[in-house]
Amino acid sequence: MTVAAAAASAVQSMTGADRLCDALLAHEVDVCFANPGTSEMHFVAALDRQPRMRCILGLFEGVVTGAADGYARMTDRPAVTLLHLGPGLANGLANMHNARRAHSPMINIVGDHAVEHLPLDAPLTSDIDSLARPMSRWVKRIADPVRIDQDVADAWSQSMAPGISTLILPADMAWNEHSYRSAPVRGKRLPQTPLVQEMVVRIGAAIRTKRKVVLMLSGGALREHPLRIADNIRRSAGVEIYAQGANGRIERGRGRAPIAKLPMTHEIGIEMLRGADMVVLIGAKEPVSFFAYPNRPGRLAPPNCEIVQLAGPDQDLVQALEWLADEVNAPNEPVAVAPFAVPAPTAGPNAALTVDMVNRLVAARLPDQAIVCDEALTSSGFFDYSYDAAPHDYLQITGGAIGIGIPMAAGAAVACPGRKVINLQADGSGMYTLQGLWTHARENLDVVTIVFSNRSYATLWGEMSKVGAQTPGRNAQRMLQLDQPELDWSKMSQGLGVEAGRATTLSEFSRALDAALARRGPYLIEAMV
Amino acid sequence: MTVAAAAASAVQSMTGADRLCDALLAHEVDVCFANPGTSEMHFVAALDRQPRMRCILGLFEGVVTGAADGYARMTDRPAVTLLHLGPGLANGLANMHNARRAHSPMINIVGDHAVEHLPLDAPLTSDIDSLARPMSRWVKRIADPVRIDQDVADAWSQSMAPGISTLILPADMAWNEHSYRSAPVRGKRLPQTPLVQEMVVRIGAAIRTKRKVVLMLSGGALREHPLRIADNIRRSAGVEIYAQGANGRIERGRGRAPIAKLPMTHEIGIEMLRGADMVVLIGAKEPVSFFAYPNRPGRLAPPNCEIVQLAGPDQDLVQALEWLADEVNAPNEPVAVAPFAVPAPTAGPNAALTVDMVNRLVAARLPDQAIVCDEALTSSGFFDYSYDAAPHDYLQITGGAIGIGIPMAAGAAVACPGRKVINLQADGSGMYTLQGLWTHARENLDVVTIVFSNRSYATLWGEMSKVGAQTPGRNAQRMLQLDQPELDWSKMSQGLGVEAGRATTLSEFSRALDAALARRGPYLIEAMV
Repeated sequence: MTVAAAAASAVQSMTGADRLCDALLAHEVDVCFANPGTSEMHFVAALDRQPRMRCILGLFEGVVTGAADGYARMTDRPAVTLLHLGPGLANGLANMHNARRAHSPMINIVGDHAVEHLPLDAPLTSDIDSLARPMSRWVKRIADPVRIDQDVADAWSQSMAPGISTLILPADMAWNEHSYRSAPVRGKRLPQTPLVQEMVVRIGAAIRTKRKVVLMLSGGALREHPLRIADNIRRSAGVEIYAQGANGRIERGRGRAPIAKLPMTHEIGIEMLRGADMVVLIGAKEPVSFFAYPNRPGRLAPPNCEIVQLAGPDQDLVQALEWLADEVNAPNEPVAVAPFAVPAPTAGPNAALTVDMVNRLVAARLPDQAIVCDEALTSSGFFDYSYDAAPHDYLQITGGAIGIGIPMAAGAAVACPGRKVINLQADGSGMYTLQGLWTHARENLDVVTIVFSNRSYATLWGEMSKVGAQTPGRNAQRMLQLDQPELDWSKMSQGLGVEAGRATTLSEFSRALDAALARRGPYLIEAMV
Repeated sequence: MTVAAAAASAVQSMTGADRLCDALLAHEVDVCFANPGTSEMHFVAALDRQPRMRCILGLFEGVVTGAADGYARMTDRPAVTLLHLGPGLANGLANMHNARRAHSPMINIVGDHAVEHLPLDAPLTSDIDSLARPMSRWVKRIADPVRIDQDVADAWSQSMAPGISTLILPADMAWNEHSYRSAPVRGKRLPQTPLVQEMVVRIGAAIRTKRKVVLMLSGGALREHPLRIADNIRRSAGVEIYAQGANGRIERGRGRAPIAKLPMTHEIGIEMLRGADMVVLIGAKEPVSFFAYPNRPGRLAPPNCEIVQLAGPDQDLVQALEWLADEVNAPNEPVAVAPFAVPAPTAGPNAALTVDMVNRLVAARLPDQAIVCDEALTSSGFFDYSYDAAPHDYLQITGGAIGIGIPMAAGAAVACPGRKVINLQADGSGMYTLQGLWTHARENLDVVTIVFSNRSYATLWGEMSKVGAQTPGRNAQRMLQLDQPELDWSKMSQGLGVEAGRATTLSEFSRALDAALARRGPYLIEAMV
């Protein structure tokens, strides 16, 4: 018997919390975004005994889950979150919703009362299982310390499917000691649903005979390699290709195929799909409008358009595209696009800053291998200028649950030290999880936050006019305007430990951006637009 | 036919949103704490046409629901909240959890996609019904515009039971027009469960024969009148009386019976109930410890102690106490307590500020009819000094979901213009919903926020030592300390539009408190303790 074998077979006595920690590490889950409470203290103590686990505090659970999402988008593997009973989970649900829509792997550990304490209905008691299910792919309540290895293996397998796994950890499951014979073993990945070859043949035939075929890409199909295949199919076979309206991650910039997103705005989406005979889904969902409006269809493709799924987000999207490229005899050529010089702002340096100027300058000065988080919403525009910018990753809000930008930037920065993260942040949305700036400071993350300060829920003003309220009265103004008082993002940021500056003109913004890009560590620019 | 009758029988055509608004107003629900989104725009437009409804924006839904809780605690009637689909509801759940534990009436309107849009699974789609149920007493999805009157009447009746009613409003139910024959009619209150006279007799017998009988009060039993009855029973019959560990509202201060709270800390609670033969619940729950610990009972009363419920929170608590007073022949006398002069701080004016000094000074200088919100947690202490302070209302965190203080203070101030609101706020908890300070500023609410800045999750340091981790390592410190960087509450507050000052010595705090109490409108004192 070798020493290693002896060690492996030695019986170890440890708490369930320690075992849980070891089992997570056996799956290379070694980053824990946390906001713990009393019921999780034994797990906190276990984490404290395991320096391999990097624990990162968020001062609100929306920061915790949003950071786990950003981390997963950049690593394709889960971080673990640590959440405090039902309310802690509830606070994290909105960004779990975004993560779910981004197909991000994530493992949540939610503490609960000890099994015998639960029926006493102490103040913090709530129905955690029911709260977890709507945003989770898989929910399990740890009920047997002997099975913790298997529970973690299952949680990991399900998260890589991909999706959100939520493990509920009763306090006594964490604190009780048990004997374990061997080290935790890594779980297996769930088998992927195989692609259907006949579907490829059918789509190939349509491409050869139909007038307008549209490939809709999302998920893993938006990385550099599959994007190039899709672009080759586009050029040789005459199809159109779009990314879904909202995606977890797009590899973008010079050398990558410059895909456009299909807007989920009703009018524009319908116009772009007008005349389509077939829409092929490759990791994407059928294109629909973001919201419904009276007497307008929710589906964006024409009524007689065929919608076919070549591959879902849990299937091999690269192989799907390779098969389709073979089927239509697409060549394998490098991406060739006309160079696109981001047009310089036309206004003078002392002109009042505009959304467009900010987006142009960021695109023009983007550092190589930057990670761009986009929760700019009505201040969007960067994406239109970015296809020939320096190569970068583009992460956007996916589920419409505002408040993802600041946390997602934190998670991306943790995932990719050495790369600059730029967060394009709408002000109303940024307010949802501004606490995340403190985590930027605490971990000295290399994140530049650019807040588009327009002092209103600008999205909603547009919607108000759509419902026929042309001259909003006091109540509408009180619910849609963020002035009176105006938010001072510089002061809030400084209060949270992140240096900040305000820019009201083009030259001020330009200087602030240069300074922020030249340094390392967090900085916030309040762009008064 | 009179003019009024003609008007009443006239057929009115209006949108479901307008009808919903009218029906709420028919129940005197005339304050709407809101954070709307696109799917709620028709309801926003309806609110805009109804100036009788006061709409108050929170920049995060935890502010919205926490404010509705504070409003309900001070008015005993529901405000309506306006929340944006599943994520908006999710963000509000933690403070709904506190409201549920405070037995606060509340009506939530949660927008959802139009009925035909829902199956398209657009990005913001989620299972709202499942998310709502754990924190709601009653959940209903509006499915028929003709029934909106009845839905609102039911929501109101259930909220007054008391509890949280959640009405899900699909967008098309809001935008479609219908004809209504008459004005909405106010719903009826649900019949209260009658008290059981035999229970009073049984408790009376126990009081006469048992060694130690404890009355546990909560909910409506903690107002001035029932407190006086309970105190008369205490003095004449020799029982002990306690308030539950956490309660929605206590009428307290000079002239009110100085009830103590039964701590939910395991050791102290058990000690206080040692030797009890009977615990009588009057609007309270059986006393249990807040959290479980290994090998310690969760129930605080001795194993052989009888637990009897005289009246639940939905029953007539005043009558229950009156019957019991009659049964034991308690006199009806005014409260007489030895005057309690809050001891002056013993340290000199330049001594470093302590938690105790803050709590003493606030109690000593409390304005008449102040409303005190208490989320001080480890910085508690005010309650011990407050029984002979100026008459006031005392509102505390009830469900352990941190982040209630700032929003609750907003709601209480909206409910009671002309009364000073003082929020005693732990710093870690305050960070959960600091966005609420903006609402203080926006509505010019007369709230003084006192932040106990101790730069740590101090509760958890205590718990860490209980689990045997005497020398916490890096991971524990990274999860429990709020330093590196330190939060600057003054700057954050100013950034949110609320004037603020920092106090590090007794004299600085004393001056800041005097100034804050002398003015009207929001102010924040960062007490460095």
